[in-house]
Amino acid sequence: MTKDQSPSRAGTRRTGARRQEPRLKQDRALRTRRAILKAAAEVFAQRDYPSVTILDIAEQAGVTKGAVYFHFANKEAVAVAVAEQFYTVLLSSLRPVLDTDAAPARKVVELLRRTARSFREDALIQAGSRLQIQQWAIESELPTPYVGFTEILTGLLTECRDGGALPDGSDPEALARVLRSALFGAQHISGVQHGWSDIVERTEEIIQALPFLASAAEDRADSSLPPAQEAI
Amino acid sequence: MTKDQSPSRAGTRRTGARRQEPRLKQDRALRTRRAILKAAAEVFAQRDYPSVTILDIAEQAGVTKGAVYFHFANKEAVAVAVAEQFYTVLLSSLRPVLDTDAAPARKVVELLRRTARSFREDALIQAGSRLQIQQWAIESELPTPYVGFTEILTGLLTECRDGGALPDGSDPEALARVLRSALFGAQHISGVQHGWSDIVERTEEIIQALPFLASAAEDRADSSLPPAQEAI
Repeated sequence: MTKDQSPSRAGTRRTGARRQEPRLKQDRALRTRRAILKAAAEVFAQRDYPSVTILDIAEQAGVTKGAVYFHFANKEAVAVAVAEQFYTVLLSSLRPVLDTDAAPARKVVELLRRTARSFREDALIQAGSRLQIQQWAIESELPTPYVGFTEILTGLLTECRDGGALPDGSDPEALARVLRSALFGAQHISGVQHGWSDIVERTEEIIQALPFLASAAEDRADSSLPPAQEAI
Repeated sequence: MTKDQSPSRAGTRRTGARRQEPRLKQDRALRTRRAILKAAAEVFAQRDYPSVTILDIAEQAGVTKGAVYFHFANKEAVAVAVAEQFYTVLLSSLRPVLDTDAAPARKVVELLRRTARSFREDALIQAGSRLQIQQWAIESELPTPYVGFTEILTGLLTECRDGGALPDGSDPEALARVLRSALFGAQHISGVQHGWSDIVERTEEIIQALPFLASAAEDRADSSLPPAQEAI
């Protein structure tokens, strides 16, 4: 990203028509980079890391191998970029829910539902999850999304406890770890068995299994939530 | 196993001292095979499948490569045998709990606790879990322990529902899938982050998160359960 942005900053120092050309080049480079990352996510979502080649990614993106190598040093660099984008997109997709005035238990429900929809519909999220499981095959350390996710859940569940919405003696941190484990396990098994097609239903079962979430999920009067985004 | 058993059956047809020798040989072969499987489980629990060699397994077992090849055609055959033993041991370790007169919810609690202890203490269970995750690297299909595990849980949770121990409208099958996902996720994250050292605590959190299990876990009066086996 830094590499792609620097010509832009340099370009703004020039004036008139002369700065048009580098900006156009930069736009095209950015578009190509995005197309490569999107294609790489599609490939990594379907196949295991060791079997994927730069050529596979180039063909999926409709570009040359050279174009991929212009943006990424090697396959590992592509995987790291996909995993980082996965992390960013997953966590930032939760932001609109956190910014509402909904009750904290309802926010937890919405976070779980959004994440489940992302797993079902977004190759980037599927690829990120699959790459995580194959961390051993990748030398660079990938970001661990469940750490940030658990922190967000812990914050919301602490609000739930302080508002009296949790059963007596509940530990918000422990409950956050349980939800993280359940969602992680559900998406993994759903991914292996059904290509994530049933992850939304499996996640709804998790919500229904916890009485305080089940009753928050029933509360249809809560209109303070942003409209559901089918694809994030 | 079949291969090892057949000399025994043949041996019983002979009489006196002459049948002693093949039986001794067979005993030694069985002991060696067990030692190899135990060593292989230790290696597969610690390292990823593609990086393990037959020599690693032989050295861990204190035998020659030839001894390993006498019992197994290749590394894949060893991995399959470990995964099958994992499946058998995991499910059969639950049998004593199922055979008691404990309340079904209490049986669920005990199943989860026993499984968690197995993950913490038994290299075979750790290896089985780790090999499962790497199924893609292994041509033969490994047994999927969570299928049998989920069936057992569904049976017990159906008893819970019929006995009025579940919240109204609970679906035993759905609840079984939630417990399976939560336990699978917890053991995976615990394995990656802490070598399974905290899986017992993480599993206790799952039990505490579900009110009907938490209250069954509290019931200390239930003495119909077999004594806890620290190592299964």
